[in-house]
Amino acid sequence: MIAEILSTGDEIRSGSLTDTNSAWLSQKLEEAGVDVTRHNCVGDDVPMLVAVMKEIGGRANLCLVTGGLGPTVDDLSAEAAARAACVGLIQNDTALRSIEAFFASRNLTMPDSNRKQAVLPESAQVLPNPVGTAPGFSLIIGECRFFFMPGVPYEMRQMMADAVMPLIHEIQGEDRPIHRIKTLSTFGLTESMAGQQVADVTSAFPGLKLGLRAKFPEIQIKFYASGKDEAALDRLLDEATRWVQGRLGDKVFSTTGASMAAVVGDLLREKGATLALAESCTGGLIASLMTDVSGSSDYFLFSGITYSDAAKTGVLGVSPRTLEAHGAVSEETVREMASGARRVAGATYGLATSGIAGPSGGTDEKPVGTVCIGLATPEKVTAYRFRYHFPRRAMNKSIFAMKALDILRRAIPG
Amino acid sequence: MIAEILSTGDEIRSGSLTDTNSAWLSQKLEEAGVDVTRHNCVGDDVPMLVAVMKEIGGRANLCLVTGGLGPTVDDLSAEAAARAACVGLIQNDTALRSIEAFFASRNLTMPDSNRKQAVLPESAQVLPNPVGTAPGFSLIIGECRFFFMPGVPYEMRQMMADAVMPLIHEIQGEDRPIHRIKTLSTFGLTESMAGQQVADVTSAFPGLKLGLRAKFPEIQIKFYASGKDEAALDRLLDEATRWVQGRLGDKVFSTTGASMAAVVGDLLREKGATLALAESCTGGLIASLMTDVSGSSDYFLFSGITYSDAAKTGVLGVSPRTLEAHGAVSEETVREMASGARRVAGATYGLATSGIAGPSGGTDEKPVGTVCIGLATPEKVTAYRFRYHFPRRAMNKSIFAMKALDILRRAIPG
Repeated sequence: MIAEILSTGDEIRSGSLTDTNSAWLSQKLEEAGVDVTRHNCVGDDVPMLVAVMKEIGGRANLCLVTGGLGPTVDDLSAEAAARAACVGLIQNDTALRSIEAFFASRNLTMPDSNRKQAVLPESAQVLPNPVGTAPGFSLIIGECRFFFMPGVPYEMRQMMADAVMPLIHEIQGEDRPIHRIKTLSTFGLTESMAGQQVADVTSAFPGLKLGLRAKFPEIQIKFYASGKDEAALDRLLDEATRWVQGRLGDKVFSTTGASMAAVVGDLLREKGATLALAESCTGGLIASLMTDVSGSSDYFLFSGITYSDAAKTGVLGVSPRTLEAHGAVSEETVREMASGARRVAGATYGLATSGIAGPSGGTDEKPVGTVCIGLATPEKVTAYRFRYHFPRRAMNKSIFAMKALDILRRAIPG
Repeated sequence: MIAEILSTGDEIRSGSLTDTNSAWLSQKLEEAGVDVTRHNCVGDDVPMLVAVMKEIGGRANLCLVTGGLGPTVDDLSAEAAARAACVGLIQNDTALRSIEAFFASRNLTMPDSNRKQAVLPESAQVLPNPVGTAPGFSLIIGECRFFFMPGVPYEMRQMMADAVMPLIHEIQGEDRPIHRIKTLSTFGLTESMAGQQVADVTSAFPGLKLGLRAKFPEIQIKFYASGKDEAALDRLLDEATRWVQGRLGDKVFSTTGASMAAVVGDLLREKGATLALAESCTGGLIASLMTDVSGSSDYFLFSGITYSDAAKTGVLGVSPRTLEAHGAVSEETVREMASGARRVAGATYGLATSGIAGPSGGTDEKPVGTVCIGLATPEKVTAYRFRYHFPRRAMNKSIFAMKALDILRRAIPG
């Protein structure tokens, strides 16, 4: 079964709104074993809508459409669908009753304008909308079954789950294939390095499709597999995962799609260990990443965001002499910051960053992109210096944070 | 001039990545007075790419393509473009030199795989990529000029600004209309409330187009105007801005597109004031937002991310009795946190958060979504309690942080 997505609406066409529906719908279809071949988007314009619906009607078996079901003059999906299917428009009583019921359940009077939402193509089958006024509908155009859903994401998602997916499964019948996706997250490789190193995985494991995705600053390696035998698919993905881990070693930090912060958090929890941070150049980003993980209060105790030298000495106990002799961005300073954070919070590990995120503040000796990272463990204190070459402050903050977490991850005994 | 957008790549086609490039590019084209009629997306599949390029070549005058320029086997844009334009592929020396220069400037050896990125259609004009390895290119297919850019957003945006927009302006000639966009950022209104309150701005100012954009947790009100008279356009936008400010008052926190953190930072700098934070539930997010702004070390001194009670007492001097009597999430505790952060860092203002971001940790008395915010100024210490109803931890952290910054913004004397 070949499927396409059509998102409609001037706000999406003109870019004032980013279309998140198409990605969501594609993922749902791919998970259900339906190949999505193409996304389309046009604005609120009947001839354009009719043309693209007829095109898709000649190319695909299934099309999911979002938007254009509202009560206003620029909601044109029903009109365009009727023209593309060469049928008339009539008031659909099922649809009208569902709209009336929506207003009645909220003790509201239905405005006259909402009556328009019940005027649907003659051949349409109504798809109920339990969470909004706009009913969806389904009909055949050319060789293709179209499902028309609202553009509001939560209404669309509800309709997709309740009404559309069951109808798609019905069309697929007993025989539908099973699909599996596996994500391996890596850090420390560029996309092209990762690509080169794993390119031959598809020869080693025929039937596997490989994808690479740069989700700065990590690179994700994705495997796609489909077939009828669930256990065989899982085995194939497991073996391919081990193959990649053999190649890339501990550059692979997660095989579940978990973030670096979640992986580090799980390691800390497993060991009954706790973490304190001292952040200068990362400015709270590491703490924010760690605390994005639910349950992080189990292991995350404290971060001192010591932007000023006074805070470095006052809160973390960094020696003014160290700051004077070596500067804030130095191995010596991050050692004392890491030890200070660890001591102040009574944590197992202390992790510290100090660097120059830019765009200003760089010197010849310590250019923008320089970061020093300190790690205090129960055994020892170590410090590192790195230099990155990214053009934006936010990217530097992000790679500094990721590098620091990666150093901690490798230091926690396995 | 009629334009289309084509985004390519299996990760977008299959929905594992949301396409943000198409919206961004459409907005840039619309701002430049180019009508975008359609977005298209297909995967890494040469016949499919060729077919859609030929289609667009017969429909549009201009097409912006993203993705498929990388060094790996699934980067197929150059091959597909050559086939669609019926020309051969050759090694482009300009492109090769630019890739070599990219690696040389970083003291890296160019991997052999990157050589592929210099193999371009014979008729292609190279578009330099100063921030990545993949050069872009431009060529004619059918009746349409195509611009091929990388899929990585920051590389694409840079190439669009440096190379593509100047070429589009050249095509448009002298006569192109001037377009202006004005962004008013608001906090404290829902999208529908904002929409209702400013709906009649277009009757008050004919010629103005109104757009609303939810950029959680802020709502942006956007004005679009176009014409030939630059001064008249600026006047129109200024008057409309004042009209909206009259309606919404200080719910409008920026008329330049600046972030809340940048607005607060500018206020602090103007007053020669400094800021210290004490964050519990926001976990470093406020500090990270503040330090995303370049030059923030002028006014941002310190944040204590005191997730544990021990850190609240040890670092910030919160009294254990207060914690015991009222709990960590209480007006009493955030008062002491704010005062403690202010005192420890020697700052003008101390701002503190403590709350329950969820999904776990809520109680009947303090449900998920509860946040207490404390503010210590040179004159007094105040505390507030709010309750939000968002379904996700990240949304709660984000709205807690924004609310705290908004309280500080309103407290800094104007």
